[in-house]
Amino acid sequence: MTETTLAELNTCSKPDFVAALANIFEYSPWIAEKAAERRPFAGVTELFAAMREVVEQAAPGQRLALIKAHPDLADKTKQGDMLTAESSAEQNSAGLDRLSEAEYQAFDRVNKAYREKFGFPYIVCVRRHTKDSILRDFARRLPNDAAIEIAASIAEICKIAALRTDLLVSGEHPLKVHGWLSTHVLDTHSGKPAAGIAVDLVELSDLGTSRIIARTVTNHDGRTDAPLIGGRPVPIGRYELRFSTASYFADRNVPLSDPPFLDVIPLQFSVYDPEGHLHVPLLVTPWSYGTYRGS
Amino acid sequence: MTETTLAELNTCSKPDFVAALANIFEYSPWIAEKAAERRPFAGVTELFAAMREVVEQAAPGQRLALIKAHPDLADKTKQGDMLTAESSAEQNSAGLDRLSEAEYQAFDRVNKAYREKFGFPYIVCVRRHTKDSILRDFARRLPNDAAIEIAASIAEICKIAALRTDLLVSGEHPLKVHGWLSTHVLDTHSGKPAAGIAVDLVELSDLGTSRIIARTVTNHDGRTDAPLIGGRPVPIGRYELRFSTASYFADRNVPLSDPPFLDVIPLQFSVYDPEGHLHVPLLVTPWSYGTYRGS
Amino acid sequence: MTETTLAELNTCSKPDFVAALANIFEYSPWIAEKAAERRPFAGVTELFAAMREVVEQAAPGQRLALIKAHPDLADKTKQGDMLTAESSAEQNSAGLDRLSEAEYQAFDRVNKAYREKFGFPYIVCVRRHTKDSILRDFARRLPNDAAIEIAASIAEICKIAALRTDLLVSGEHPLKVHGWLSTHVLDTHSGKPAAGIAVDLVELSDLGTSRIIARTVTNHDGRTDAPLIGGRPVPIGRYELRFSTASYFADRNVPLSDPPFLDVIPLQFSVYDPEGHLHVPLLVTPWSYGTYRGS
Amino acid sequence: MTETTLAELNTCSKPDFVAALANIFEYSPWIAEKAAERRPFAGVTELFAAMREVVEQAAPGQRLALIKAHPDLADKTKQGDMLTAESSAEQNSAGLDRLSEAEYQAFDRVNKAYREKFGFPYIVCVRRHTKDSILRDFARRLPNDAAIEIAASIAEICKIAALRTDLLVSGEHPLKVHGWLSTHVLDTHSGKPAAGIAVDLVELSDLGTSRIIARTVTNHDGRTDAPLIGGRPVPIGRYELRFSTASYFADRNVPLSDPPFLDVIPLQFSVYDPEGHLHVPLLVTPWSYGTYRGS
Repeated sequence: MTETTLAELNTCSKPDFVAALANIFEYSPWIAEKAAERRPFAGVTELFAAMREVVEQAAPGQRLALIKAHPDLADKTKQGDMLTAESSAEQNSAGLDRLSEAEYQAFDRVNKAYREKFGFPYIVCVRRHTKDSILRDFARRLPNDAAIEIAASIAEICKIAALRTDLLVSGEHPLKVHGWLSTHVLDTHSGKPAAGIAVDLVELSDLGTSRIIARTVTNHDGRTDAPLIGGRPVPIGRYELRFSTASYFADRNVPLSDPPFLDVIPLQFSVYDPEGHLHVPLLVTPWSYGTYRGS
Repeated sequence: MTETTLAELNTCSKPDFVAALANIFEYSPWIAEKAAERRPFAGVTELFAAMREVVEQAAPGQRLALIKAHPDLADKTKQGDMLTAESSAEQNSAGLDRLSEAEYQAFDRVNKAYREKFGFPYIVCVRRHTKDSILRDFARRLPNDAAIEIAASIAEICKIAALRTDLLVSGEHPLKVHGWLSTHVLDTHSGKPAAGIAVDLVELSDLGTSRIIARTVTNHDGRTDAPLIGGRPVPIGRYELRFSTASYFADRNVPLSDPPFLDVIPLQFSVYDPEGHLHVPLLVTPWSYGTYRGS
Repeated sequence: MTETTLAELNTCSKPDFVAALANIFEYSPWIAEKAAERRPFAGVTELFAAMREVVEQAAPGQRLALIKAHPDLADKTKQGDMLTAESSAEQNSAGLDRLSEAEYQAFDRVNKAYREKFGFPYIVCVRRHTKDSILRDFARRLPNDAAIEIAASIAEICKIAALRTDLLVSGEHPLKVHGWLSTHVLDTHSGKPAAGIAVDLVELSDLGTSRIIARTVTNHDGRTDAPLIGGRPVPIGRYELRFSTASYFADRNVPLSDPPFLDVIPLQFSVYDPEGHLHVPLLVTPWSYGTYRGS
Repeated sequence: MTETTLAELNTCSKPDFVAALANIFEYSPWIAEKAAERRPFAGVTELFAAMREVVEQAAPGQRLALIKAHPDLADKTKQGDMLTAESSAEQNSAGLDRLSEAEYQAFDRVNKAYREKFGFPYIVCVRRHTKDSILRDFARRLPNDAAIEIAASIAEICKIAALRTDLLVSGEHPLKVHGWLSTHVLDTHSGKPAAGIAVDLVELSDLGTSRIIARTVTNHDGRTDAPLIGGRPVPIGRYELRFSTASYFADRNVPLSDPPFLDVIPLQFSVYDPEGHLHVPLLVTPWSYGTYRGS
């Protein structure tokens, strides 16, 4: 899909409208077709609401077909040629294109067990998740009955569609589908923002290997110039922030013990609201520190 | 060596005195012989001071011989039969009996480089160290000149001897050779000590693998019944305390996010004063925590 | 009353026993008389429990007479000659002997309103209270009905009696009638206990004037040599601890702003459990501080 | 003076320019006259820099005359009719129009002592001060010699002039003469910003009476809609922020002790940089709190 504007979508021909939005819902152009009748839209949020309403008002058979149009989660990582470009990019965002053999096996087992029970693939909006939280989510959903899982699948499909719409269409009333992870380091030894502290953000994994996903340095205000994660959902999962505090204090000639009592400080926390703003600050001296869920 | 009392040492025959203390200084009974003349001693501290004075007043050749009487650090791990029982137990305390092949190679290189430069083995009081800090200490000492290293070796030998004396002889004025690591968890959500929090103490290692060295649960006062490390020096090195806070709050029906914002909280710190008291408390709510070097 | 031992009370004649305990319950020797029959007592707690049981099993008329035997709260401050020595000392502990004219009027109004409604004096264990909390307690109790107030008065009389027993009789199983207020100052700028910090404890009053009730200096461990309040109940009320931190840091050549950002730090808190241990520590740098209900 | 724009000042006649700026420096139109020659100015900062340069390059006699053109500090409060309108408004900002008799006496003594020693009035930029800090500043300056005090007086006159320029002239490159005091309350019991907390800001005074200078309530983000002090220098002095936390937690049905351990929390701090941004946040649970110099 190429990016477009709401203005263009409001004024183009119906076939062009349908073509432009064809892949918002996987292999299901009928949704755009119905939504086209409601043009013009005051904003992107209204456009998406119209498509969601079409889905919600569709007959049960149609909804099930929509669900079945989705690929298997782990298969995608191997058989990329059968995926839509959108689907492929999404799997990659969660690192599903970097699965180890063991991880692939875990995902494959999950898919098979789910498909066997329900007769349709396990669908989850992977851009809102880490690998670990996808498996955790699965473990919760597998015991459900089919009605609940059909509703859950539709809800996930709508989350996927909202993110695709946000990427594709620019215009008024953008969708609220982005979150934000930020930090701030206060040096309470000198009473100033801590500038020049190296900060790593690590996505923790019980399943596979943890990996550094952002590496930055605090600016003159003790913050990072850009959010650690921003402009997209913050994936549900466990994270660790690592702050190199001993070298910061040593550079400022603050007396330290040898080895320093505190050196690289790890803060571990979980993200649970991908569309929210999570602020995780650090208050630090060479001998103490604290953190809290900020705002 | 079998344990004895200061009273016995003050009153026994000189040969018995020398025999009892023979291994305080590795293969060097002449030290006990000289010290015997100063009997009686008011306390263990005075007994040890007398032996140390003998060492300090010995001729340079004798001091060098004392140094050379010590085994190579890594060799000990392989050739246990050539070690005194004391020496063997000490190596084990630092985990030198559990060296991986890679670690053994690292220690072996260190020893050889040191012996090649100075003509005597690299001596360090291993009970005051972790594997990592032994190598770190070595990297600092290798560039020194011989005079400094002879003094450093004698100082380490005296630290070894003090610990052996403390283990062997009971009596008045015990030696101050023990440190103490403790924690305390305050639940600032309910304003009470946090009872029943699972706490793990991990010795961190850059060289080899980190290992859990204490596993306990906080008591009604939020403390541990026994110090995490006590009754011996707290080895210089890097540590991590892990506090299972999410399960604690969940057990008390405190509302948490899903997954919980904070779950197992890691506090990483270094020990730099093996004979000191290091108190590392945790103040915690489900949304914030802090720590500091306490007292 | 002169101090005595449980052993003496267990073995003396009954008249001596009654005489010794005559004033534990105001003008009511019949309680000691009955309790004497249960001798010997294993401890002071058992002695007191016996007296309390006598009160609890007394006929309603006797209990009312016991209540009426107590003096009016404010009258005591003027007509000291009609009080038992015990009663007088207790009023003084809460500062009732230092009432301003306005305060006296407030207490007098309270007493009259209460006596008018119930026909007996307003009784409260003043050693467990500050002036403010006595009036606050009164405001809560005045709307009650007589049955509740008779029970409340008996409960207060027993608290008074317990404290008198504790002062009078020494022996095994002492009564748990003492609380404890302590503090601890940690200098998280240097990672050490803050020694030599001047600390004032102020009893706050909305009614009258606040007054300094303890003035001390922290010792080498950042604590005070004696508890701020100890060996007695900690009176319910509002308090302020004042820590002179700027002069402490200035003495240690820590760079400060001019004037210092933080100077004398006030911590305000309330005591609600006179028999509990309340620990109110301060963690402080020149630019930050924190406190919490400790243990 | 009526407000004007830089554009007008750059293009008007020289007499109009001088008239417009006549009172920037008390009774000294010669400064504007000389500065007029440098027109046009790129911004307000450049305009002010030109006037300051005129002052700095003036002959010693002219500078002394400028100093002597200023009124006595305390006299102003009584003899308002002899003050320029600017001077009068400035005295009022520091509360010098609300002096008690005792305060007036203190200020009068200060002025007389200073004038007696130096032969010119004690000049201080009162908008940057509280009453207490004016007297504190005086106590420091009185022991100086005349040369230092002439320089100090000129520096204060320039600060006064900068603030008057800022009030009078709008345009590019505004002067950096405003500071900012802000707060933020984080409820670390619930992990959210504390909305609806009543906050009072009190200017503390040792000399006279403390007074509430701002009274507000935190918004949904735990901040105040407007800075506590902003759009002007934050006067050097001691302040207390009072946060009504117990009623906040009680409203949210959080279990509290009776009386609540923490109720209205006072944070006392000093302002030392009137043009800076001072952020004083509160992290709070019903059982703990902390603050720090934020950013």
